[in-house]
Amino acid sequence: MGHEFDRDTEVSAVGENEYAADLGPGWVVGGGVNGGYLLAVIGNALRETLPGKPDPIAVTAYYLAASKPGPATIRTRVVRDGRRTSTVAADLSQGGTDCITVLATFGDLSTFTGDVRTTALEPELPPVEECIPTSMAPEEIRRIAPLMSRFDLRLDPAYAGWAVGEPSGNGVIQGWFRLNDERDPDPISLLLTVDALPPVTFDLGMPGWAPTLELSAHVRAIPAKGWLKVRHETRNLAGGMFEEDCVVWDSTGRLVAQARQLALAPRPQ
Amino acid sequence: MGHEFDRDTEVSAVGENEYAADLGPGWVVGGGVNGGYLLAVIGNALRETLPGKPDPIAVTAYYLAASKPGPATIRTRVVRDGRRTSTVAADLSQGGTDCITVLATFGDLSTFTGDVRTTALEPELPPVEECIPTSMAPEEIRRIAPLMSRFDLRLDPAYAGWAVGEPSGNGVIQGWFRLNDERDPDPISLLLTVDALPPVTFDLGMPGWAPTLELSAHVRAIPAKGWLKVRHETRNLAGGMFEEDCVVWDSTGRLVAQARQLALAPRPQ
Repeated sequence: MGHEFDRDTEVSAVGENEYAADLGPGWVVGGGVNGGYLLAVIGNALRETLPGKPDPIAVTAYYLAASKPGPATIRTRVVRDGRRTSTVAADLSQGGTDCITVLATFGDLSTFTGDVRTTALEPELPPVEECIPTSMAPEEIRRIAPLMSRFDLRLDPAYAGWAVGEPSGNGVIQGWFRLNDERDPDPISLLLTVDALPPVTFDLGMPGWAPTLELSAHVRAIPAKGWLKVRHETRNLAGGMFEEDCVVWDSTGRLVAQARQLALAPRPQ
Repeated sequence: MGHEFDRDTEVSAVGENEYAADLGPGWVVGGGVNGGYLLAVIGNALRETLPGKPDPIAVTAYYLAASKPGPATIRTRVVRDGRRTSTVAADLSQGGTDCITVLATFGDLSTFTGDVRTTALEPELPPVEECIPTSMAPEEIRRIAPLMSRFDLRLDPAYAGWAVGEPSGNGVIQGWFRLNDERDPDPISLLLTVDALPPVTFDLGMPGWAPTLELSAHVRAIPAKGWLKVRHETRNLAGGMFEEDCVVWDSTGRLVAQARQLALAPRPQ
Protein backbone atom coordinates (compact mmCIF):
# COMPACT_ATOMS: atom_id res chain seq x y z
CA MET A 1 0.00 0.00 0.00
CA GLY A 2 1.42 3.40 -0.99
CA HIS A 3 5.10 4.20 -1.15
CA GLU A 4 7.69 3.28 1.44
CA PHE A 5 8.54 6.95 2.05
CA ASP A 6 4.92 7.85 2.79
CA ARG A 7 4.33 4.86 5.06
CA ASP A 8 7.49 5.61 7.04
CA THR A 9 6.87 9.35 7.48
CA GLU A 10 3.21 9.05 8.45
CA VAL A 11 2.01 10.74 11.63
CA SER A 12 -1.24 10.37 13.54
CA ALA A 13 -2.86 12.97 15.76
CA VAL A 14 -2.97 11.89 19.40
CA GLY A 15 -3.99 15.17 21.00
CA GLU A 16 -4.17 18.86 20.26
CA ASN A 17 -1.03 19.73 18.33
CA GLU A 18 0.47 16.38 19.30
CA TYR A 19 1.32 13.62 16.84
CA ALA A 20 2.71 10.11 17.06
CA ALA A 21 5.20 8.68 14.58
CA ASP A 22 7.04 5.40 14.32
CA LEU A 23 10.57 6.02 13.11
CA GLY A 24 11.52 3.28 10.67
CA PRO A 25 14.70 1.23 11.20
CA GLY A 26 15.42 1.61 7.49
CA TRP A 27 16.37 5.29 7.91
CA VAL A 28 19.30 4.77 10.25
CA VAL A 29 22.75 6.04 9.27
CA GLY A 30 25.83 6.61 11.41
CA GLY A 31 24.85 7.36 14.99
CA GLY A 32 21.08 7.52 14.60
CA VAL A 33 18.06 8.09 12.41
CA ASN A 34 18.80 10.40 9.45
CA GLY A 35 18.09 14.08 10.16
CA GLY A 36 16.43 14.73 6.79
CA TYR A 37 14.01 11.86 7.37
CA LEU A 38 13.14 13.38 10.77
CA LEU A 39 12.43 16.70 9.04
CA ALA A 40 10.02 14.97 6.65
CA VAL A 41 8.20 13.30 9.59
CA ILE A 42 7.98 16.65 11.39
CA GLY A 43 6.91 18.26 8.11
CA ASN A 44 3.93 15.91 7.95
CA ALA A 45 2.93 16.87 11.50
CA LEU A 46 3.19 20.58 10.63
CA ARG A 47 1.12 20.04 7.51
CA GLU A 48 -1.65 18.59 9.68
CA THR A 49 -1.36 21.54 12.06
CA LEU A 50 -1.84 24.06 9.23
CA PRO A 51 -4.82 23.23 7.01
CA GLY A 52 -4.56 24.91 3.61
CA LYS A 53 -0.82 25.46 3.98
CA PRO A 54 0.61 22.10 2.93
CA ASP A 55 4.13 23.10 1.90
CA PRO A 56 7.29 23.81 3.83
CA ILE A 57 8.79 27.07 2.55
CA ALA A 58 11.50 27.46 5.17
CA VAL A 59 12.37 24.83 7.77
CA THR A 60 15.11 25.15 10.38
CA ALA A 61 16.20 22.34 12.68
CA TYR A 62 18.55 22.36 15.63
CA TYR A 63 19.60 18.81 16.46
CA LEU A 64 19.78 18.05 20.18
CA ALA A 65 20.21 14.30 20.56
CA ALA A 66 20.36 11.29 18.26
CA SER A 67 17.05 9.58 17.45
CA LYS A 68 16.59 5.84 17.23
CA PRO A 69 14.02 3.70 15.44
CA GLY A 70 10.70 3.38 17.24
CA PRO A 71 7.96 5.59 18.63
CA ALA A 72 8.39 9.37 18.66
CA THR A 73 6.15 12.26 19.66
CA ILE A 74 5.93 15.52 17.71
CA ARG A 75 4.48 18.60 19.40
CA THR A 76 3.64 21.59 17.22
CA ARG A 77 2.78 25.20 18.06
CA VAL A 78 1.53 27.95 15.76
CA VAL A 79 3.68 31.01 16.34
CA ARG A 80 2.06 33.30 13.79
CA ASP A 81 -0.94 32.43 11.66
CA GLY A 82 -0.78 34.62 8.59
CA ARG A 83 -2.89 34.85 5.47
CA ARG A 84 -0.44 33.35 2.96
CA THR A 85 2.11 31.82 5.31
CA SER A 86 2.23 30.67 8.92
CA THR A 87 5.20 30.27 11.21
CA VAL A 88 5.28 27.27 13.49
CA ALA A 89 7.49 25.58 16.07
CA ALA A 90 7.84 21.83 16.57
CA ASP A 91 9.78 19.40 18.73
CA LEU A 92 10.34 15.72 18.21
CA SER A 93 11.00 13.70 21.34
CA GLN A 94 11.55 10.08 22.26
CA GLY A 95 11.02 8.80 25.80
CA GLY A 96 10.82 12.36 27.12
CA THR A 97 14.08 13.49 25.52
CA ASP A 98 13.92 16.24 22.88
CA CYS A 99 15.84 15.09 19.81
CA ILE A 100 15.26 18.00 17.48
CA THR A 101 13.66 21.43 17.71
CA VAL A 102 12.27 23.15 14.64
CA LEU A 103 11.01 26.51 13.41
CA ALA A 104 9.28 26.66 10.05
CA THR A 105 7.16 28.70 7.68
CA PHE A 106 4.50 26.85 5.69
CA GLY A 107 2.24 27.97 2.86
CA ASP A 108 0.77 26.77 -0.42
CA LEU A 109 3.61 26.84 -2.94
CA SER A 110 1.19 26.43 -5.86
CA THR A 111 0.01 30.00 -5.15
CA PHE A 112 3.53 31.45 -5.25
CA THR A 113 3.75 32.51 -8.85
CA GLY A 114 5.80 35.17 -10.56
CA ASP A 115 9.03 35.60 -12.44
CA VAL A 116 11.87 33.15 -12.11
CA ARG A 117 15.34 34.72 -12.36
CA THR A 118 18.04 32.17 -11.69
CA THR A 119 21.75 32.83 -12.05
CA ALA A 120 22.60 29.66 -10.12
CA LEU A 121 24.02 26.99 -12.41
CA GLU A 122 22.46 23.55 -12.62
CA PRO A 123 24.91 20.88 -11.43
CA GLU A 124 26.68 19.23 -14.36
CA LEU A 125 26.29 15.49 -13.95
CA PRO A 126 27.17 12.63 -16.26
CA PRO A 127 24.11 10.68 -17.47
CA VAL A 128 22.43 8.54 -14.79
CA GLU A 129 23.81 5.33 -16.25
CA GLU A 130 27.39 6.67 -16.08
CA CYS A 131 27.12 7.51 -12.37
CA ILE A 132 27.90 5.16 -9.50
CA PRO A 133 24.89 3.59 -7.78
CA THR A 134 25.33 3.49 -4.02
CA SER A 135 23.66 0.08 -4.21
CA MET A 136 27.15 -1.04 -5.32
CA ALA A 137 28.50 -0.25 -1.83
CA PRO A 138 29.85 -3.23 0.13
CA GLU A 139 27.29 -5.23 2.08
CA GLU A 140 28.86 -4.34 5.46
CA ILE A 141 28.46 -0.60 4.70
CA ARG A 142 24.88 -1.05 3.62
CA ARG A 143 24.14 -2.95 6.84
CA ILE A 144 25.30 -0.11 9.12
CA ALA A 145 23.73 2.49 6.82
CA PRO A 146 20.33 1.11 5.81
CA LEU A 147 19.39 4.68 4.77
CA MET A 148 21.33 4.00 1.56
CA SER A 149 18.73 1.42 0.52
CA ARG A 150 15.79 3.84 0.74
CA PHE A 151 16.57 5.60 -2.52
CA ASP A 152 18.40 5.25 -5.76
CA LEU A 153 21.45 7.51 -5.53
CA ARG A 154 23.87 7.68 -8.47
CA LEU A 155 27.03 9.53 -7.54
CA ASP A 156 29.07 11.61 -9.96
CA PRO A 157 32.32 9.62 -10.27
CA ALA A 158 34.32 12.89 -10.24
CA TYR A 159 33.56 13.22 -6.51
CA ALA A 160 33.14 9.59 -5.48
CA GLY A 161 36.81 8.59 -5.22
CA TRP A 162 36.55 8.61 -1.42
CA ALA A 163 34.73 5.27 -1.72
CA VAL A 164 38.01 3.72 -2.85
CA GLY A 165 40.29 5.85 -0.66
CA GLU A 166 40.89 8.59 -3.24
CA PRO A 167 38.88 11.66 -2.22
CA SER A 168 38.99 14.52 -4.74
CA GLY A 169 39.73 17.08 -2.02
CA ASN A 170 37.12 19.49 -3.40
CA GLY A 171 34.54 19.11 -0.64
CA VAL A 172 31.82 18.25 -3.17
CA ILE A 173 29.41 15.31 -3.50
CA GLN A 174 26.74 15.26 -6.17
CA GLY A 175 24.47 12.83 -7.92
CA TRP A 176 21.07 11.77 -9.19
CA PHE A 177 18.45 11.00 -6.51
CA ARG A 178 15.18 9.14 -6.62
CA LEU A 179 13.12 7.60 -3.81
CA ASN A 180 12.29 3.88 -3.78
CA ASP A 181 9.15 2.76 -5.64
CA GLU A 182 9.80 5.67 -8.04
CA ARG A 183 7.95 7.81 -5.52
CA ASP A 184 8.05 11.26 -7.11
CA PRO A 185 9.47 14.20 -5.17
CA ASP A 186 7.29 16.75 -3.42
CA PRO A 187 8.05 19.57 -0.96
CA ILE A 188 7.98 17.17 2.02
CA SER A 189 10.32 14.61 0.44
CA LEU A 190 12.77 17.42 -0.44
CA LEU A 191 13.32 17.81 3.32
CA LEU A 192 14.82 14.33 3.25
CA THR A 193 16.73 14.91 0.02
CA VAL A 194 18.68 17.90 1.34
CA ASP A 195 20.23 15.76 4.07
CA ALA A 196 20.38 12.28 2.54
CA LEU A 197 23.79 12.21 0.85
CA PRO A 198 27.04 11.24 2.59
CA PRO A 199 28.75 14.20 4.31
CA VAL A 200 30.97 16.28 2.00
CA THR A 201 33.81 15.76 4.44
CA PHE A 202 34.18 12.28 2.84
CA ASP A 203 35.39 14.11 -0.26
CA LEU A 204 37.94 15.99 1.89
CA GLY A 205 39.41 12.71 3.05
CA MET A 206 37.70 12.84 6.43
CA PRO A 207 35.62 9.70 6.87
CA GLY A 208 33.32 9.40 9.86
CA TRP A 209 30.20 10.76 11.40
CA ALA A 210 29.52 14.52 10.98
CA PRO A 211 26.67 15.48 13.33
CA THR A 212 24.53 18.40 12.20
CA LEU A 213 24.18 21.32 14.61
CA GLU A 214 21.76 23.35 12.51
CA LEU A 215 20.09 22.90 9.14
CA SER A 216 17.89 25.37 7.28
CA ALA A 217 16.10 24.31 4.10
CA HIS A 218 14.20 26.52 1.67
CA VAL A 219 11.78 24.83 -0.73
CA ARG A 220 11.75 27.17 -3.71
CA ALA A 221 9.24 25.40 -5.95
CA ILE A 222 7.12 22.26 -6.21
CA PRO A 223 9.41 19.73 -7.89
CA ALA A 224 8.48 18.03 -11.16
CA LYS A 225 8.28 14.25 -11.39
CA GLY A 226 11.39 12.20 -12.02
CA TRP A 227 15.03 12.25 -11.04
CA LEU A 228 16.48 15.05 -8.93
CA LYS A 229 19.99 16.42 -9.20
CA VAL A 230 21.53 17.04 -5.77
CA ARG A 231 24.81 18.80 -5.07
CA HIS A 232 26.47 19.29 -1.67
CA GLU A 233 29.49 21.51 -1.21
CA THR A 234 31.54 22.97 1.61
CA ARG A 235 33.77 26.01 1.26
CA ASN A 236 35.01 26.49 4.80
CA LEU A 237 36.13 23.99 7.39
CA ALA A 238 37.39 25.72 10.52
CA GLY A 239 37.43 25.26 14.27
CA GLY A 240 36.16 21.71 13.89
CA MET A 241 33.03 22.78 12.01
CA PHE A 242 32.03 23.03 8.38
CA GLU A 243 29.05 24.32 6.45
CA GLU A 244 27.40 22.12 3.85
CA ASP A 245 25.40 23.82 1.12
CA CYS A 246 22.89 21.76 -0.79
CA VAL A 247 21.02 22.54 -3.98
CA VAL A 248 18.33 20.35 -5.51
CA TRP A 249 17.26 20.74 -9.15
CA ASP A 250 14.30 18.94 -10.67
CA SER A 251 13.93 17.14 -14.00
CA THR A 252 12.77 20.33 -15.76
CA GLY A 253 15.99 22.14 -14.79
CA ARG A 254 14.45 24.20 -12.01
CA LEU A 255 16.14 24.97 -8.68
CA VAL A 256 13.63 23.52 -6.19
CA ALA A 257 15.48 23.54 -2.87
CA GLN A 258 18.45 25.18 -1.18
CA ALA A 259 19.72 24.13 2.22
CA ARG A 260 22.67 24.88 4.41
CA GLN A 261 23.79 23.06 7.49
CA LEU A 262 26.52 23.64 10.05
CA ALA A 263 28.04 20.36 11.17
CA LEU A 264 30.85 19.09 13.34
CA ALA A 265 33.81 17.77 11.37
CA PRO A 266 34.58 14.11 11.98
CA ARG A 267 37.32 13.51 14.54
CA PRO A 268 40.62 12.37 13.04
CA GLN A 269 40.63 8.57 12.96
CA MET B 1 30.30 56.12 27.51
CA GLY B 2 31.40 53.19 25.37
CA HIS B 3 30.42 52.71 21.78
CA GLU B 4 27.08 53.52 20.23
CA PHE B 5 26.56 49.88 19.14
CA ASP B 6 27.10 48.58 22.69
CA ARG B 7 24.87 51.21 24.30
CA ASP B 8 22.07 50.51 21.83
CA THR B 9 22.18 46.71 22.08
CA GLU B 10 22.39 46.56 25.87
CA VAL B 11 19.90 44.39 27.76
CA SER B 12 19.09 44.24 31.47
CA ALA B 13 17.73 41.24 33.35
CA VAL B 14 14.22 41.87 34.68
CA GLY B 15 13.32 38.32 35.73
CA GLU B 16 14.38 34.76 35.23
CA ASN B 17 15.32 34.40 31.56
CA GLU B 18 13.64 37.74 30.85
CA TYR B 19 15.45 40.84 29.65
CA ALA B 20 14.50 44.40 28.82
CA ALA B 21 15.93 46.34 25.89
CA ASP B 22 15.31 49.79 24.47
CA LEU B 23 15.40 49.63 20.68
CA GLY B 24 17.17 52.72 19.40
CA PRO B 25 15.49 54.96 16.80
CA GLY B 26 18.80 55.11 14.94
CA TRP B 27 18.43 51.51 13.75
CA VAL B 28 15.26 51.99 11.73
CA VAL B 29 15.20 51.17 8.03
CA GLY B 30 12.28 50.62 5.70
CA GLY B 31 9.25 49.37 7.61
CA GLY B 32 10.83 48.90 11.03
CA VAL B 33 13.89 48.34 13.15
CA ASN B 34 16.65 46.49 11.28
CA GLY B 35 16.55 42.69 11.71
CA GLY B 36 20.30 42.31 12.18
CA TYR B 37 20.26 44.86 14.99
CA LEU B 38 17.46 42.87 16.66
CA LEU B 39 19.61 39.74 16.41
CA ALA B 40 22.47 41.54 18.17
CA VAL B 41 20.12 42.65 20.98
CA ILE B 42 18.78 39.10 21.34
CA GLY B 43 22.35 37.81 21.14
CA ASN B 44 23.23 39.90 24.20
CA ALA B 45 20.28 38.42 26.11
CA LEU B 46 21.36 34.88 25.15
CA ARG B 47 24.89 35.64 26.23
CA GLU B 48 23.59 36.55 29.69
CA THR B 49 21.51 33.36 29.76
CA LEU B 50 24.56 31.17 29.05
CA PRO B 51 27.52 32.00 31.30
CA GLY B 52 30.81 30.77 29.82
CA LYS B 53 29.33 30.52 26.33
CA PRO B 54 29.57 34.09 25.08
CA ASP B 55 29.53 33.54 21.32
CA PRO B 56 26.77 32.88 18.81
CA ILE B 57 27.81 29.95 16.62
CA ALA B 58 24.51 29.50 14.80
CA VAL B 59 21.55 31.85 15.09
CA THR B 60 18.24 31.46 13.24
CA ALA B 61 15.49 34.05 13.25
CA TYR B 62 11.96 33.88 11.92
CA TYR B 63 10.51 37.39 11.61
CA LEU B 64 6.89 37.69 12.66
CA ALA B 65 6.05 41.40 12.82
CA ALA B 66 7.92 44.66 12.34
CA SER B 67 9.56 46.16 15.44
CA LYS B 68 9.60 49.84 16.29
CA PRO B 69 11.91 51.94 18.43
CA GLY B 70 11.22 51.75 22.15
CA PRO B 71 10.95 49.14 24.89
CA ALA B 72 11.14 45.45 24.02
CA THR B 73 11.16 42.27 26.10
CA ILE B 74 13.35 39.26 25.32
CA ARG B 75 12.48 35.89 26.82
CA THR B 76 15.06 33.12 26.60
CA ARG B 77 14.88 29.38 27.23
CA VAL B 78 17.69 26.85 27.38
CA VAL B 79 16.72 23.92 25.14
CA ARG B 80 19.85 21.84 25.62
CA ASP B 81 22.73 22.68 27.93
CA GLY B 82 25.79 20.91 26.56
CA ARG B 83 29.40 20.88 27.59
CA ARG B 84 30.88 22.87 24.71
CA THR B 85 27.72 24.34 23.20
CA SER B 86 24.18 25.05 24.32
CA THR B 87 21.04 25.42 22.25
CA VAL B 88 18.58 28.11 23.22
CA ALA B 89 15.31 29.66 22.12
CA ALA B 90 14.39 33.34 22.39
CA ASP B 91 11.51 35.64 21.52
CA LEU B 92 11.51 39.41 21.27
CA SER B 93 8.17 41.07 21.85
CA GLN B 94 6.79 44.59 22.04
CA GLY B 95 3.50 45.38 23.77
CA GLY B 96 2.63 41.69 23.92
CA THR B 97 3.24 41.05 20.20
CA ASP B 98 6.02 38.63 19.25
CA CYS B 99 8.22 40.32 16.63
CA ILE B 100 10.87 37.67 16.13
CA THR B 101 11.45 34.12 17.30
CA VAL B 102 14.94 32.66 17.46
CA LEU B 103 16.79 29.38 17.88
CA ALA B 104 20.53 29.49 18.48
CA THR B 105 23.60 27.58 19.52
CA PHE B 106 26.16 29.42 21.65
CA GLY B 107 29.65 28.44 22.79
CA ASP B 108 33.10 29.90 23.34
CA LEU B 109 34.61 30.39 19.88
CA SER B 110 38.08 30.93 21.34
CA THR B 111 38.10 27.21 22.22
CA PHE B 112 37.23 26.12 18.67
CA THR B 113 40.66 25.53 17.26
CA GLY B 114 41.89 23.30 14.50
CA ASP B 115 42.65 23.38 10.81
CA VAL B 116 41.23 26.02 8.52
CA ARG B 117 40.52 24.78 4.99
CA THR B 118 38.81 27.47 2.95
CA THR B 119 38.05 27.20 -0.74
CA ALA B 120 35.67 30.16 -0.59
CA LEU B 121 37.16 33.21 -2.30
CA GLU B 122 37.54 36.49 -0.46
CA PRO B 123 35.41 39.21 -2.09
CA GLU B 124 37.46 41.35 -4.46
CA LEU B 125 36.88 44.95 -3.51
CA PRO B 126 38.54 48.14 -4.68
CA PRO B 127 40.46 49.95 -1.92
CA VAL B 128 38.26 51.60 0.74
CA GLU B 129 38.95 55.06 -0.63
CA GLU B 130 37.76 54.05 -4.11
CA CYS B 131 34.42 52.73 -2.84
CA ILE B 132 31.26 54.78 -2.42
CA PRO B 133 30.45 55.85 1.15
CA THR B 134 26.73 55.53 1.89
CA SER B 135 27.13 58.76 3.81
CA MET B 136 26.97 60.34 0.32
CA ALA B 137 23.31 59.25 0.01
CA PRO B 138 20.79 62.07 -0.31
CA GLU B 139 19.56 63.60 2.95
CA GLU B 140 15.96 62.42 2.36
CA ILE B 141 17.15 58.80 2.06
CA ARG B 142 19.25 59.07 5.19
CA ARG B 143 16.26 60.48 7.08
CA ILE B 144 13.99 57.48 6.32
CA ALA B 145 16.89 55.06 6.77
CA PRO B 146 18.79 56.23 9.86
CA LEU B 147 20.39 52.75 10.00
CA MET B 148 22.76 53.98 7.27
CA SER B 149 24.32 56.43 9.73
CA ARG B 150 25.26 53.75 12.28
CA PHE B 151 28.24 52.47 10.36
CA ASP B 152 30.69 53.39 7.68
CA LEU B 153 29.72 51.39 4.59
CA ARG B 154 31.76 51.79 1.40
CA LEU B 155 30.07 50.14 -1.54
CA ASP B 156 31.89 48.55 -4.45
CA PRO B 157 30.99 50.86 -7.38
CA ALA B 158 30.60 47.79 -9.65
CA TYR B 159 27.35 46.94 -7.85
CA ALA B 160 26.19 50.37 -6.70
CA GLY B 161 24.70 51.64 -9.97
CA TRP B 162 21.18 51.15 -8.56
CA ALA B 163 21.75 54.31 -6.53
CA VAL B 164 21.66 56.27 -9.79
CA GLY B 165 19.06 54.10 -11.53
CA GLU B 166 21.55 51.77 -13.22
CA PRO B 167 21.49 48.43 -11.40
CA SER B 168 24.09 45.93 -12.61
CA GLY B 169 21.51 43.12 -12.79
CA ASN B 170 23.85 40.67 -11.05
CA GLY B 171 22.04 40.50 -7.72
CA VAL B 172 25.20 41.42 -5.82
CA ILE B 173 26.01 44.13 -3.28
CA GLN B 174 29.36 44.27 -1.54
CA GLY B 175 31.51 46.69 0.37
CA TRP B 176 33.68 47.59 3.31
CA PHE B 177 31.92 47.78 6.69
CA ARG B 178 32.88 49.37 9.98
CA LEU B 179 30.73 50.36 12.96
CA ASN B 180 30.64 53.96 14.21
CA ASP B 181 33.28 55.03 16.76
CA GLU B 182 35.59 52.50 15.04
CA ARG B 183 33.99 49.90 17.31
CA ASP B 184 35.77 46.70 16.32
CA PRO B 185 33.75 43.68 15.21
CA ASP B 186 33.00 40.75 17.49
CA PRO B 187 30.70 37.72 17.18
CA ILE B 188 27.68 39.73 18.42
CA SER B 189 28.22 42.65 16.05
CA LEU B 190 28.53 40.21 13.14
CA LEU B 191 24.83 39.41 13.70
CA LEU B 192 24.11 42.99 12.68
CA THR B 193 26.62 42.99 9.84
CA VAL B 194 25.03 40.03 8.03
CA ASP B 195 21.77 41.97 7.64
CA ALA B 196 22.86 45.60 7.47
CA LEU B 197 23.38 46.19 3.74
CA PRO B 198 20.63 47.22 1.30
CA PRO B 199 18.72 44.22 -0.15
CA VAL B 200 20.40 42.65 -3.19
CA THR B 201 17.15 43.13 -5.08
CA PHE B 202 18.24 46.78 -5.49
CA ASP B 203 20.95 45.47 -7.80
CA LEU B 204 18.28 43.56 -9.78
CA GLY B 205 16.43 46.81 -10.43
CA MET B 206 13.79 46.11 -7.80
CA PRO B 207 13.75 48.98 -5.31
CA GLY B 208 11.62 48.72 -2.19
CA TRP B 209 11.26 46.89 1.06
CA ALA B 210 12.21 43.18 1.09
CA PRO B 211 10.97 41.69 4.38
CA THR B 212 12.97 38.74 5.71
CA LEU B 213 11.07 35.53 6.43
CA GLU B 214 13.98 33.57 7.83
CA LEU B 215 17.65 34.28 8.45
CA SER B 216 20.33 31.88 9.67
CA ALA B 217 23.80 33.14 10.53
CA HIS B 218 26.89 31.08 11.31
CA VAL B 219 29.76 32.83 13.07
CA ARG B 220 32.80 30.88 11.91
CA ALA B 221 35.55 32.67 13.82
CA ILE B 222 36.18 35.63 16.12
CA PRO B 223 36.83 38.54 13.75
CA ALA B 224 40.06 40.53 13.86
CA LYS B 225 40.02 44.29 14.43
CA GLY B 226 39.43 46.65 11.55
CA TRP B 227 37.35 46.81 8.41
CA LEU B 228 35.17 43.91 7.34
CA LYS B 229 34.45 42.90 3.77
CA VAL B 230 30.78 42.01 3.29
CA ARG B 231 29.23 40.47 0.18
CA HIS B 232 25.55 39.73 -0.43
CA GLU B 233 24.36 37.74 -3.41
CA THR B 234 21.17 36.14 -4.67
CA ARG B 235 21.09 33.36 -7.24
CA ASN B 236 17.39 32.56 -7.42
CA LEU B 237 14.37 34.83 -7.39
CA ALA B 238 11.17 32.84 -7.85
CA GLY B 239 7.57 32.86 -6.68
CA GLY B 240 8.01 36.30 -5.15
CA MET B 241 10.87 35.18 -2.90
CA PHE B 242 14.64 35.30 -3.09
CA GLU B 243 17.50 34.00 -1.01
CA GLU B 244 20.30 36.32 0.02
CA ASP B 245 23.65 34.80 0.89
CA CYS B 246 26.07 36.86 2.93
CA VAL B 247 29.73 36.31 3.64
CA VAL B 248 31.84 38.42 5.97
CA TRP B 249 35.63 38.38 5.85
CA ASP B 250 37.86 40.09 8.40
CA SER B 251 40.95 42.25 7.96
CA THR B 252 43.25 39.22 8.13
CA GLY B 253 41.49 37.59 5.16
CA ARG B 254 39.54 35.07 7.21
CA LEU B 255 35.93 34.06 6.54
CA VAL B 256 34.24 34.96 9.84
CA ALA B 257 30.51 34.70 9.08
CA GLN B 258 28.13 33.13 6.59
CA ALA B 259 24.42 33.87 6.55
CA ARG B 260 21.48 33.10 4.33
CA GLN B 261 18.05 34.64 4.42
CA LEU B 262 14.84 34.00 2.54
CA ALA B 263 13.02 37.25 1.85
CA LEU B 264 9.97 38.49 0.01
CA ALA B 265 10.77 40.30 -3.22
CA PRO B 266 9.63 43.92 -3.33
CA ARG B 267 6.28 44.42 -5.05
CA PRO B 268 6.57 46.03 -8.49
CA GLN B 269 6.34 49.81 -8.06
